[in-house]
Amino acid sequence: MRLATVAVETPVGRERRLCVRDESRDAADPGSLVDVTSGHTWLLERDGEPAAAEHAAAVTPPAMRPFLERGDRALDAARDVLDAVPDPGDGSAPRADGSAPRADGSDGHVRTEGGARVRFSPAEDGVRLLAPLPRPNTVRDFMAYEEHVRNTLGEPPEVWFDIPVCYKGNPDTVVGPGDTVTWPDYSGLWDYELELAAVIGKRGTDVDADAAGEYIAGYTVYNDFSARDTQGEEMDANLGPAKGKDFANALGPYLVTADAFEPSEATMTAEVDGEVWSEGTPGEMHHSFADIVAHVSDSEPLRPGDVLGSGTVGEGCGLELGQFLEDGQTVALEVEGIGRLENTVVSGDGG
Amino acid sequence: MRLATVAVETPVGRERRLCVRDESRDAADPGSLVDVTSGHTWLLERDGEPAAAEHAAAVTPPAMRPFLERGDRALDAARDVLDAVPDPGDGSAPRADGSAPRADGSDGHVRTEGGARVRFSPAEDGVRLLAPLPRPNTVRDFMAYEEHVRNTLGEPPEVWFDIPVCYKGNPDTVVGPGDTVTWPDYSGLWDYELELAAVIGKRGTDVDADAAGEYIAGYTVYNDFSARDTQGEEMDANLGPAKGKDFANALGPYLVTADAFEPSEATMTAEVDGEVWSEGTPGEMHHSFADIVAHVSDSEPLRPGDVLGSGTVGEGCGLELGQFLEDGQTVALEVEGIGRLENTVVSGDGG
Repeated sequence: MRLATVAVETPVGRERRLCVRDESRDAADPGSLVDVTSGHTWLLERDGEPAAAEHAAAVTPPAMRPFLERGDRALDAARDVLDAVPDPGDGSAPRADGSAPRADGSDGHVRTEGGARVRFSPAEDGVRLLAPLPRPNTVRDFMAYEEHVRNTLGEPPEVWFDIPVCYKGNPDTVVGPGDTVTWPDYSGLWDYELELAAVIGKRGTDVDADAAGEYIAGYTVYNDFSARDTQGEEMDANLGPAKGKDFANALGPYLVTADAFEPSEATMTAEVDGEVWSEGTPGEMHHSFADIVAHVSDSEPLRPGDVLGSGTVGEGCGLELGQFLEDGQTVALEVEGIGRLENTVVSGDGG
Repeated sequence: MRLATVAVETPVGRERRLCVRDESRDAADPGSLVDVTSGHTWLLERDGEPAAAEHAAAVTPPAMRPFLERGDRALDAARDVLDAVPDPGDGSAPRADGSAPRADGSDGHVRTEGGARVRFSPAEDGVRLLAPLPRPNTVRDFMAYEEHVRNTLGEPPEVWFDIPVCYKGNPDTVVGPGDTVTWPDYSGLWDYELELAAVIGKRGTDVDADAAGEYIAGYTVYNDFSARDTQGEEMDANLGPAKGKDFANALGPYLVTADAFEPSEATMTAEVDGEVWSEGTPGEMHHSFADIVAHVSDSEPLRPGDVLGSGTVGEGCGLELGQFLEDGQTVALEVEGIGRLENTVVSGDGG
C-alpha cells in the first residue's frame, strides 16, 4: 500500500487526512485517494457497528504518526478499507443488511453518516498531497553509499566500513511534493540529494538486524537539500552539518508500506527541469536498513515516526556531478514503487 | 521563577504536573513545589470564576512544552499563583467572597474544588522531580567554550570563531535529576559534560540577536553524557557524534525563567562522588546564547521546547582532565541559580 497525508481545504479550515492510494486508478482520477479514517467509519457503519466514527478514529487515526503507532491493526484496517469502499458514483452499493449506504445525490460521492467523503483526488481543487510524515519524530540521515563517499570525501575512513554513520536532520523543516523551497540567502551553492528513507513504525530498543524488518513501517523518497558552501564551511568544525542542511527536507510523495517494497531492487532517478542528472539503487548500500535499525536501536529507543535516510546514492547530487541547482529550477526525485517528489527551488529575494 | 516537571504517583497512574518552586521554603519542606495548574484553578475558584479548572488548563497546562507555548500569559499566571496560594495547613485563608476554600481536614492541604492539591514536596513518597522538559522538541548542542575546544581538538578551526557550531542530540533519551544512567555496553570510556542549556519558549524565524532574549524561556543544567571511545571513532567520518552521545541527556533539576537568571554570571561546578572535578562560568562563551538563537533561526523556525546547549565549559569533562567516570559513581552538576543535577552511572550488565 502507498499511504499519503492529504490536505483538504474545508469551510472550517484545512484538515489533514491519511489516505491510501487506490492503485486501480490514475492519480488524477476521481477517488484515487481513499480516506482511511472515513473509509473505515463507512465500513463499520455498513456492518452495523455502533460508534463507528469513534472506533475508526481510535484504530485508524487521520495523522500518520498516531496511525503508524497502531501497527498492523491500523494497516490491516486500511487494506480492508481499500478493498471495500465503493467507487465514486457507486453510492448504491448495498450494506451487509441490504440497506443503501448514504451517498450525496448531487455529486455521487460515497459518504459516512456524518457526511465525510471516503474518496478524494489530488486533481481536485482544495486537495493536495503533503509530506506523508509532515513532522517526523526524529530525522537521522546515514551515508551508506560508498560511491557518494568516495566522490565527496575521497577514501572512506575506516569507521565508515565498520558502522553506519549519520547526522541528525531538522524535523521541523519538512516539505512535501510540489512545495517550493526558498533557498537561504547565506548560500550560493544549491544542491539536492537523491535518497531513500525508511520510516519506523514500532517502538523498540536493542533490535537485532534479523528482526529489524518488523520495525520499519515503510519507505519514502527523501531529498536532503544541501547548501554546499555553508555545509563545507561548518563541517570543518567536526560536528557535522547544520545550517547547510536544516532549512529543508523533502519527503514524499507516498509512504509505501514495507510489505510492498524491496529497497535493494528499486531504481532511483533525479531529474532537474526534466533532464536526468542521477540514477541509482539502494541495492548498492554498504550498510542495509536492517543494519541501520540495529545500530540506531543499540541502547536507544526507536519511536514511530523516526526517519532513517539512506544517504545519497552514488552520483546522486550535484556536488558529485559538478553542477548545481539554479533559481527557479525543479528537481524531481523518483523511486520506482514510491513515486515522484518534485520541488522547485527559489531564492529568498524573489529571484 | 524556577519551574519543574513533577511526577506524582496516584491510584489512577503516574501524573506529570508543572510546578513552580516556592523559594521561601527549603526543598524538603511541605509545599515547596506549587502545582501551577491546580494553583491557578484554586485562584480562579477563589475569585468566583466559572469553569475555573478548564480555564486554568487552557492558560497554564500541566506539561512544560504546552505551558511554554503560552508565553508570558502562562508565566504571569504562574507568578500570581506563587504569590497567592496559601501555605500548607493554611486552608482557612478566605476567598474574595469571604467563604473558606476547600481544604482536606485530615492533612491540612489546600485543594481545588475538584480535590487537587496545590502544593507538593519532593520529600514526599510518590513525588519526584523529572527533567523539566522530559521531551524537548529538538536538542542542539553547541561548542561555545574555546578552552574546551583547545583541550579536546587543539587549535580551533577558523569557522569555529565565525559561527556557533553544533551537533543535534537525541530528544528521546532525556533523563532527569536522580535518574540512573545505564552505560551502553559498547563503551568503556565514560564521561560527563558540564553545560548550560537555553530553552526556547516562542516561535520565530530569522530572529535578530538583539531580540533573541524574547525567545529564550529559560535555562537549565545539561549533562551531555559522552561515550568517549565511541564518539572518537564515529567522528572520524565527519558527520559528528551519534552513538557516543545519544544514549542519555540529563536536564534539570529546574528550568529557571530568563528574567531570573543571567548566564554570564553563573558559576558552574561538577562533582564526582562529592569531589569537585570541574568549575566554570557561561561568561566565557565565545558565542552568546543571543548569537546562537540568531544563528539557529536564520532560515529555520524556532519552536517552544527547542533546547540549545552551550557546549562544555573549559575543563568541564573528564576527557580534558584525563579521568573518567566509573561504574556506580554519581556525577552532580550544579549551576548557581538553577540547582544541582545528580545522576549515577551504572554498567548495563549490573556492574
